[in-house]
Amino acid sequence: MSSVVDIDHMAEALERLRGGNVRVHCITNAVAQAFTANMLLALGVTPSMTIAPTEVPAFVSSADALLVNLGTLDRQRRDAIDLALDAALEARTPWVLDPVLVNRSPERLALARTLVDREPMIVRANADEFSCLAETGETPERFAVRKLTCVALTGEVDRISNGGCSVSLANGHPLMARVTAMGCAATAVAAAFLAVEHDPLRSALCAFAVVGVAGEIAAREARGPGSFAVSLLDALYALDGDTLRRSVRMTVDEADADPRNTDLGVTAQ
Amino acid sequence: MSSVVDIDHMAEALERLRGGNVRVHCITNAVAQAFTANMLLALGVTPSMTIAPTEVPAFVSSADALLVNLGTLDRQRRDAIDLALDAALEARTPWVLDPVLVNRSPERLALARTLVDREPMIVRANADEFSCLAETGETPERFAVRKLTCVALTGEVDRISNGGCSVSLANGHPLMARVTAMGCAATAVAAAFLAVEHDPLRSALCAFAVVGVAGEIAAREARGPGSFAVSLLDALYALDGDTLRRSVRMTVDEADADPRNTDLGVTAQ
Amino acid sequence: MSSVVDIDHMAEALERLRGGNVRVHCITNAVAQAFTANMLLALGVTPSMTIAPTEVPAFVSSADALLVNLGTLDRQRRDAIDLALDAALEARTPWVLDPVLVNRSPERLALARTLVDREPMIVRANADEFSCLAETGETPERFAVRKLTCVALTGEVDRISNGGCSVSLANGHPLMARVTAMGCAATAVAAAFLAVEHDPLRSALCAFAVVGVAGEIAAREARGPGSFAVSLLDALYALDGDTLRRSVRMTVDEADADPRNTDLGVTAQ
Repeated sequence: MSSVVDIDHMAEALERLRGGNVRVHCITNAVAQAFTANMLLALGVTPSMTIAPTEVPAFVSSADALLVNLGTLDRQRRDAIDLALDAALEARTPWVLDPVLVNRSPERLALARTLVDREPMIVRANADEFSCLAETGETPERFAVRKLTCVALTGEVDRISNGGCSVSLANGHPLMARVTAMGCAATAVAAAFLAVEHDPLRSALCAFAVVGVAGEIAAREARGPGSFAVSLLDALYALDGDTLRRSVRMTVDEADADPRNTDLGVTAQ
Repeated sequence: MSSVVDIDHMAEALERLRGGNVRVHCITNAVAQAFTANMLLALGVTPSMTIAPTEVPAFVSSADALLVNLGTLDRQRRDAIDLALDAALEARTPWVLDPVLVNRSPERLALARTLVDREPMIVRANADEFSCLAETGETPERFAVRKLTCVALTGEVDRISNGGCSVSLANGHPLMARVTAMGCAATAVAAAFLAVEHDPLRSALCAFAVVGVAGEIAAREARGPGSFAVSLLDALYALDGDTLRRSVRMTVDEADADPRNTDLGVTAQ
Repeated sequence: MSSVVDIDHMAEALERLRGGNVRVHCITNAVAQAFTANMLLALGVTPSMTIAPTEVPAFVSSADALLVNLGTLDRQRRDAIDLALDAALEARTPWVLDPVLVNRSPERLALARTLVDREPMIVRANADEFSCLAETGETPERFAVRKLTCVALTGEVDRISNGGCSVSLANGHPLMARVTAMGCAATAVAAAFLAVEHDPLRSALCAFAVVGVAGEIAAREARGPGSFAVSLLDALYALDGDTLRRSVRMTVDEADADPRNTDLGVTAQ
């Protein structure tokens, strides 16, 4: 199978990620820092987390990818984001934008709008966040085309689109919404995949599939959100390509360029 | 049973909390943010956590309750607290004060004294913190009357008083003192209950009973503070009204208005 | 056995630590705060964590030991470190330096170099960090002599030296590298031991042995880094002197003063 969103590619990308000595610099909210670091470490990725403006350029320049998450957006984080994007642009470091809760904060929304123009490879948003960020009635596909990015619209079913190709991903578990920073950390994983898989659509798919499948595995034994979060880290650590192949539930909804994309044979289970 | 501190009311408030789509804005210390968020999420409550002064007013105005915890009290948190209380006053958002470690920090104590005059619905403090905050020899009952608040004096046995009615609550487990932010997070739960139970005494009782009972359940299987913290989140998630009814150990020590309060029949177990 | 690094001394120090009502003030990075607090609490040690410049002097003056970790080194942390060291010097509070990632941040390295001259009892560093901090080709032994400190060079085998005596410690588990803040928290434990064991070499040995042995115990049941971190806290909480005696694998590589140090009979297992 050779399509854009081939599941074998995903399994291979996961192997590359584990062995790739990848470092992701994360400018993320105060609540998410530790869990995000632990999720990356479970996948063999090294996190770095400083938001000190004097430190950010050196850390970003030498990183393999950058995450910018707009949570707990204080003065220092605003400054750090600006410096980080300058460094990323210069070093051609791929980056991902997570405009968390822009629907609740006019200030975040204004910043998010300027950041979208600085060429994030992936923008993750839930429905509320996306509808604030997009023009009225704009679809993720059109937004992706207009902004030259890949949109990962997260929800019960994730919808990931680069405009030309759109994929629905049905993995995950309701307990994921009961653990703080779960979405923030998954988006950091999307940044990590950009280091080993240059296509943003594939990277986003890999990340949300990997975390979603780990969530399903974790839910089998969890007795609540505490043990679920612990087991999810264990499941990420143990996840192999075969399990991923068996477990991913995705459908290609739209694929202009390549008719083979319309049936990947991976919607089983 | 129809008294002020009826246990059936507590069980009903817990159900309302889970289904209530409640959001608590927490201005809390850096160490407690993630665990507090996870404890709230385990109970179906949405946390928000930003302390950025430019963001706090919008977040507090739209929240159902506010927690102000004085830990790691840096400049930004001081500013955030001030703005948050202005917004809470205007929006009539109920709020809870946790003057953590005022006994160790003259600066926190000075601030805590001014905050007590801004009408917190509940003030949580342990014996050391309370004795700094109160006048010499002042009882929680008198402090509650003088400041028109409800005092939750936490310890091996919690003593909760609004001046007119005082209740002792004997739930909990020693391992709770071995997990960072346990008390901070329990106080955030007290703020959450204010969204569904307007009486501060009842809200505080609900919170410390629910967390204390979850602690007892968690301790049955825990092998130390690591697994205890995980199991406590699971237990909070699973806790139902019947378990609460069977497990709460409280005694009404003083109840001026209503003689029925003196025997609630809930001190079993 | 009466040598400098006697294992019975270590077991006794652990007992003193648990019963010693010790408080360690930690100026540490944002990612490490909660896990560090939980590791200290698991050992019966009280953490305090504020980095607010106005609060730091009072907290440090009344603490039993101080940890200075250079992670996420923002303006506030720089100010806090300066004030903390002034307070520690005046109160004769022992302190430990953790120059985390100085190899990635010129700014941290410059600060670390000045801090090394302010007489830390222990400097922890991995090979990359140490080679930046030391003069070209300098051994940990010479660095320790030149700077009048104790070096804990952490790695697969930890090498701890005060210049006169050097000990290799082979405890630990690879999963420790998959949990964020594990090394930061272990270094906080080294600071804690300084409160009950005045010799820095012994304190560092106790800390890294105790955490390393707990890591080995945790790894027996862990299914990944999530459950590993949880079990490690449980193991620290339960660790007793006999287990420590059976499990520590250390070798004294150099011991100028006391020939008895060359064979401690503790390298079994």
